[in-house]
Amino acid sequence: MKDIAPIEWKNFTLKILDQTLLPEKISYITCKNYKEVIKAIKDMKLRGAPLIGIVAAFAMIMEIKNKNFKNYDSLYKELKKISDELIKTRPTAVNLKWAINRILKNVEKNKERRISSIKELLISEANKIYKEDLENNKLIGKYGADLIRDKDRILTHCNAGALATAGYGTALGIIRAAVEQKKNITVYVDETRPYLQGARLTAFELVQIKIPHFLITDNMAGYFMRKGEIDIVIVGADRITANGDVANKIGTYTLAVLAHTNNIPFYVAAPSSTIDLNIKSGDDIPIEFRDEDEVKKIAGKNITTNKTKALYPAFDVTPSKYISAIITEKGIIRAPYDVNLENIFAKKEEMIIL
Amino acid sequence: MKDIAPIEWKNFTLKILDQTLLPEKISYITCKNYKEVIKAIKDMKLRGAPLIGIVAAFAMIMEIKNKNFKNYDSLYKELKKISDELIKTRPTAVNLKWAINRILKNVEKNKERRISSIKELLISEANKIYKEDLENNKLIGKYGADLIRDKDRILTHCNAGALATAGYGTALGIIRAAVEQKKNITVYVDETRPYLQGARLTAFELVQIKIPHFLITDNMAGYFMRKGEIDIVIVGADRITANGDVANKIGTYTLAVLAHTNNIPFYVAAPSSTIDLNIKSGDDIPIEFRDEDEVKKIAGKNITTNKTKALYPAFDVTPSKYISAIITEKGIIRAPYDVNLENIFAKKEEMIIL
Repeated sequence: MKDIAPIEWKNFTLKILDQTLLPEKISYITCKNYKEVIKAIKDMKLRGAPLIGIVAAFAMIMEIKNKNFKNYDSLYKELKKISDELIKTRPTAVNLKWAINRILKNVEKNKERRISSIKELLISEANKIYKEDLENNKLIGKYGADLIRDKDRILTHCNAGALATAGYGTALGIIRAAVEQKKNITVYVDETRPYLQGARLTAFELVQIKIPHFLITDNMAGYFMRKGEIDIVIVGADRITANGDVANKIGTYTLAVLAHTNNIPFYVAAPSSTIDLNIKSGDDIPIEFRDEDEVKKIAGKNITTNKTKALYPAFDVTPSKYISAIITEKGIIRAPYDVNLENIFAKKEEMIIL
Repeated sequence: MKDIAPIEWKNFTLKILDQTLLPEKISYITCKNYKEVIKAIKDMKLRGAPLIGIVAAFAMIMEIKNKNFKNYDSLYKELKKISDELIKTRPTAVNLKWAINRILKNVEKNKERRISSIKELLISEANKIYKEDLENNKLIGKYGADLIRDKDRILTHCNAGALATAGYGTALGIIRAAVEQKKNITVYVDETRPYLQGARLTAFELVQIKIPHFLITDNMAGYFMRKGEIDIVIVGADRITANGDVANKIGTYTLAVLAHTNNIPFYVAAPSSTIDLNIKSGDDIPIEFRDEDEVKKIAGKNITTNKTKALYPAFDVTPSKYISAIITEKGIIRAPYDVNLENIFAKKEEMIIL
């Protein structure tokens, strides 16, 4: 079976697979302007740090395509306004800022050109961001697969697959690549409460690409690790700081501590656009808190009392000491992270400047 | 508000609060024979290690009350048959075996008496098991509350409250007792997938007894521990082995590792009927695996693909090295557990012989 595409970009219209309906229903929503894209991100119709970055770039393009701008300043002002709104949608993942930054830098660099020419360059840049993400994931898969042995049982959390990216996936991309190398892999899929990305999205992808897997609740991961049934843990990332700390879906920190306690390698797979050298350590990453109703309800049904309050930090931070390696499209990075993360950027301008 | 009673025992009929319907609906089912009790246990209408023990004792009484037995042997044979069936319902918790054992021992001890007299003694013994559990919980609360300071934020998992026992609760009994001492306590309630005992039962109890609390998903506990927002973890237990290892609801091991990593005291609260000195270490405790559908469905709705298989170990084992203390009705027990657990039994016959 072939992958379902998480987005389709055609004629300046963005079709977004509604991930809230998976795995029951494959249905796309159509976004024709950036406001619709913002709503889709906020409502979690799509998610995944790299995918949100791609979509943000397209949102910017949509908005300027058919508008007339008197001069460079009015174009830049408009792009900056949209950027500020887009950035507010999800504070934790940095790929969103990275993609917006790439578009804005491209505008600045071409300040002297005609508006129509700048527009063309931006359209090309957004398409490049999209295309590069897929290529990067294949490289992540190639590097990461070397760390995987035949018959490995791999635990993953949330969804770091094709549905979180332009395609192929990061953590799931590595698993895919290992399977393409004819390794027999079994995946243990954390259901990933409250949004159930594991149960709904990762399991769905694994069924499509026919990789054997078991669904477990998040609190079972420790049981299987202690039993010796997990050989490797691989997760994605929403932001990696200069010291190698990793923000990722809530529950990741717990898996890292459990893996460390049970001497299981713990890998993070992410494109280098996830690395934010402007932030020194994970404690400085803003953690998004979402509506308590997303915890108190499952499939529209209340699971607790009306008088009970819930808390919903959507991400947590894993200290770098628990991370065996970070797998990027530029290769595998190991400790000391403060040195090795910076080294992978050949040129300063590749880094995110916020 | 007053507690809702998890069972009512009257005229040899057992009314069981259907915990699968909480917190939405307070509804009792009526059991008039042991087969109905077995079904209720299997269907998780009631749960909680101490409560299952109490109910098993009543189930045995129900069955012999109105039957005529020619002699001691036929009575004993009948009781043994019921015992064997009851024991099979839930393999992990030992209180079930402990209660059955108490009834069987009482029969053996009174072998020479008339059948009617033995029946009377057994009825009295079952009632004693019920009454003692409540008294024990109050003692657990009294001892445990000394470990709690004003303003403590306490994390608990699953439901070790009034609904898991004859009343008052073990882990929740300690929290209750601390609040009765006018300490300000905030409880962090793990929702406890897949059965959601935390969201459905513990939150329900805390609302009833007006103790401030926050519901979180299981994978958030690590986040709040690392943030310094949890002062103490208290959980119940399904079986405690001679070396101090603890079997409890799936997810408990993970909390213990996280508490250890974050220097947070991790307490286990349980009556001494949970202590099984016949088993040396936790690795020898049988772990119940339940139907995968209980993971794949929430509130009757599928959360994953039809082609995905799930695993459901219902309990895990926490090694004693992670346990700061075990709080029983006989006092607080600390390491070395192998010596101190045995010491609390004044008389050999108090221990479980299976």
